[in-house]
Amino acid sequence: MSSNLETLVLSSKLAVQSDYASVVSITLFVGLLCACIVIGHLLEGNRWINESITALFLGLVTGVVILLTTKGKSSRILVFSEDLFFIYLLPPIIFNAGFQVKKKQFFRNFMTITLFGALGTLISFTIISLGAIGLFKRLNLGSLDLGDYLAIGAIFSATDSVCTLQVLNQDETPFLYSLVFGEGVVNDATSVVLFNAIQKFDLVHMDAVFVVQLVGNFIYLFFTSTVLGAVAGLLSAYIIKKLYFGRHSTDREVSLMMLMAYLSYMIAELLGLSSILTVFFCGIVMSHYTWHNVTESSRITTKHAFATMSFIAEIFLFLYVGMDALDIEKWKFVSDSPAKSVGLSSLLVGLVLMGRAAFVFPLSFLSNLTKKSPTEKINIRQQVIIWWAGLMRGAVSIALAYNQFARAGHTQLRGNAIMITSTITVVLFSTVVFGLLTKPLIRLLLPHVPKHMSSMSSDPPSPKSFLSRLLETGQGSEVEAGRFDSIEPSSFRMLLTKPSKSVHHYWRKFDNAFMRPAFGGRGFVPFIPGSPTERDYRAEEEH
Amino acid sequence: MSSNLETLVLSSKLAVQSDYASVVSITLFVGLLCACIVIGHLLEGNRWINESITALFLGLVTGVVILLTTKGKSSRILVFSEDLFFIYLLPPIIFNAGFQVKKKQFFRNFMTITLFGALGTLISFTIISLGAIGLFKRLNLGSLDLGDYLAIGAIFSATDSVCTLQVLNQDETPFLYSLVFGEGVVNDATSVVLFNAIQKFDLVHMDAVFVVQLVGNFIYLFFTSTVLGAVAGLLSAYIIKKLYFGRHSTDREVSLMMLMAYLSYMIAELLGLSSILTVFFCGIVMSHYTWHNVTESSRITTKHAFATMSFIAEIFLFLYVGMDALDIEKWKFVSDSPAKSVGLSSLLVGLVLMGRAAFVFPLSFLSNLTKKSPTEKINIRQQVIIWWAGLMRGAVSIALAYNQFARAGHTQLRGNAIMITSTITVVLFSTVVFGLLTKPLIRLLLPHVPKHMSSMSSDPPSPKSFLSRLLETGQGSEVEAGRFDSIEPSSFRMLLTKPSKSVHHYWRKFDNAFMRPAFGGRGFVPFIPGSPTERDYRAEEEH
Repeated sequence: MSSNLETLVLSSKLAVQSDYASVVSITLFVGLLCACIVIGHLLEGNRWINESITALFLGLVTGVVILLTTKGKSSRILVFSEDLFFIYLLPPIIFNAGFQVKKKQFFRNFMTITLFGALGTLISFTIISLGAIGLFKRLNLGSLDLGDYLAIGAIFSATDSVCTLQVLNQDETPFLYSLVFGEGVVNDATSVVLFNAIQKFDLVHMDAVFVVQLVGNFIYLFFTSTVLGAVAGLLSAYIIKKLYFGRHSTDREVSLMMLMAYLSYMIAELLGLSSILTVFFCGIVMSHYTWHNVTESSRITTKHAFATMSFIAEIFLFLYVGMDALDIEKWKFVSDSPAKSVGLSSLLVGLVLMGRAAFVFPLSFLSNLTKKSPTEKINIRQQVIIWWAGLMRGAVSIALAYNQFARAGHTQLRGNAIMITSTITVVLFSTVVFGLLTKPLIRLLLPHVPKHMSSMSSDPPSPKSFLSRLLETGQGSEVEAGRFDSIEPSSFRMLLTKPSKSVHHYWRKFDNAFMRPAFGGRGFVPFIPGSPTERDYRAEEEH
Repeated sequence: MSSNLETLVLSSKLAVQSDYASVVSITLFVGLLCACIVIGHLLEGNRWINESITALFLGLVTGVVILLTTKGKSSRILVFSEDLFFIYLLPPIIFNAGFQVKKKQFFRNFMTITLFGALGTLISFTIISLGAIGLFKRLNLGSLDLGDYLAIGAIFSATDSVCTLQVLNQDETPFLYSLVFGEGVVNDATSVVLFNAIQKFDLVHMDAVFVVQLVGNFIYLFFTSTVLGAVAGLLSAYIIKKLYFGRHSTDREVSLMMLMAYLSYMIAELLGLSSILTVFFCGIVMSHYTWHNVTESSRITTKHAFATMSFIAEIFLFLYVGMDALDIEKWKFVSDSPAKSVGLSSLLVGLVLMGRAAFVFPLSFLSNLTKKSPTEKINIRQQVIIWWAGLMRGAVSIALAYNQFARAGHTQLRGNAIMITSTITVVLFSTVVFGLLTKPLIRLLLPHVPKHMSSMSSDPPSPKSFLSRLLETGQGSEVEAGRFDSIEPSSFRMLLTKPSKSVHHYWRKFDNAFMRPAFGGRGFVPFIPGSPTERDYRAEEEH
């Protein structure tokens, strides 16, 4: 009995202690976030800098300040936790990306995206792992076993979807954006499979069965994750359509959408699926069905609220990575061998460059073979941009590195510490250097991008471009859909000549016949007279 | 060096462990939140039940289910933490209340609200403390010292502002809402002063100086908290007006408003001020200035996003309190003396009833003395409702009880455990019984409330009532303001006869002459042609 209460007292004491520390760190972080937004806005005209780079630098500066004020004791306020990253920061970013993605562009390139994300990641993984096995031995890093080398391959094959969102613009380069970002999402599913496979890795069973298992595993994971996301999205659409019809409440609608999306992510996490893939597809389905079932004010609110949450999470993430990079404890281990650390980091950057080149160019060639029209092919300039824009490594790599090298055990202290600091070095280098050079590279290689569009690119999604884009996209795809129906007759021949267009055609038919009547969607939710929108407009007109 | 890495390894192992547990608990909570929203909607026609009561019951049921599945080991997934409550749940609720409050109604009753919140809480505190000293001795609760009795007085004088939001409707009974809710906000400042005073409590210095210090402390705290909130609000208005003018970005505007409000709360928390008061005034200032400086889509987004966040936080809170109530560890201590526990809880409920009656009726009488017009006076029926609607005790009481009785030490195990369970009993009882009976009581005592309004009361703020209310309020106060200027001339005589109206008049003059030109506000931000709203409307018309 008394021990129970003691636990109670202890835990409450801990809670009170953590209370003050967390108040201080939250205050600091929130203040820095405000600073990032204001500074990011002031630097808006600058074509190199954006909020992310600002956040990264502000994080580094804050780290230095804390380092100096605490006299070298600690540079970080919050310990990098996978929890914080995977449970709180990543879901809003990926969900918003799915919610705002141009669905047509995405699905049109679906095969290429899957090819890049699955096979490409595997190629990159193989090359980085083999390169690490071949080159690291000279560096005398301590005893890394085969599992560690494979883990290194997986860590540095994990692309950073969040960075992609920052450097590529959906309006400016829709094709490249959908390809590189979509690849990043599929990449996550591949990474999960690879990590599970590495943990079960066994040299004795390294045969054809293992490879088949790996492929089967990937297909299973890809399928279940996607279905889970789609089901969550459809469920939200159905609930809002059935229950709320005629008496909409914005608070409840927005809450339900937000909570259902988050629930899908957490369930995927719980079941060991690719939660990124799940929440991405949940976002796509929600924007296709649920979003059309809610009131006008809910539509505006969700669009902007999700974007805002994603925006804050992104800045927070970069701030955090910047601050975490200066963690003194990690650097203590490598301070006696700086040359080795620099060498290792350079090697890794080289392997990342090679690993990506090794699949982007061959797979683009393969993808071009299936396409007849020269406009649909990926030209060499686009290939270079795809290669370059996907080079950034981010918080996912850091989280995986912690997972592998801080947990592996006490025996390889030296090698482990160096691997973690090298990962951070690669992440910082790739984010800053590759990130900064992507926009100029696009301007150099694709000068035909419309001028007014490229001036927009330095703008983050503003409400102007945002709302108008929304309307344009909606009308645009409606129009195109009409064109499909009228000009091109559905035929079996079409399925052979233009498979992706024909799949799209049949999907639209199915969507209109079965899905939209059941789950709602554009044009399938009758206009409610006297709805807030109408009132709102009337009031405005009377005004 | 090795110990450093060991710490790293250990903390990362802990993180991984906590990872799975937190994924499970978050999944469960998010799922339950969805269930609460859907069930709450289905029960919408019911005049007794709302989302909060649903959440409370669902929390209790889940607690029972977990209790049965874990075979009596644990009923809770998350430990009640002050962190979670004070840092994450409370700020959005109170900020949203300040953001959506009817400012005119609030400031018109400002004196009465402050009287109730400050002097009233003090009276209630005194009566409950004296009652506890007099009555508890018979229950043989172990050795509670004077500090404990005073803490009991403070714990049970802390009203639950969140419950007030649930049972009183701003549209139906604006006067009562502003009075009871406003009182709850001021109550928080008083509670902070009382708690600090109790901690420094010293019988030797219990003299006039101490009382003066107490009053001085309250005035200082009230003033600084309010000023901090106002400064944060004005700063956000200024930044958005100056920096963003002409090239608005919804994401940034919404982020800045959200982050600045949260920052004000955290700074107040850090400085030991009344953070509730701070964020409440920040909300008021933001809705008066900042909200008018942002784009139309930001306005809709902020209105609904803040309301949604508050809505989710409220449901979460009730779910949490319901689930926490069944924590088996706490009840083990009182299982051998159930009669004593029931007796104590009943005594406390009685004291709460008395303590509130002891200030509502006398202070209403006092307040009525200052008012000449009979329509402005608080009639006896309204007094009964004010008394009744403020009886609920909530999570603040639980948090304070944990703070006092789980921290106090190991010496008074028995008395401490019983105090915590009794607090939970009182909170559950008052929330369910007083909460459920408030609406019927209002219907009984105030039958003249318009019928269409009272049908609305079972609705939570829906976008229909919401947007139209928004427009009505805006236009309404504009119209009224005009009336003031034209009909009633500013004169010194007015200051004597109608002080509050005259204060309002001078405030408007000052606001229009100095504040709005500097910080923006309705009518002081020129319409931007081609703004998203306009485009949006045009597109709709063309459609």
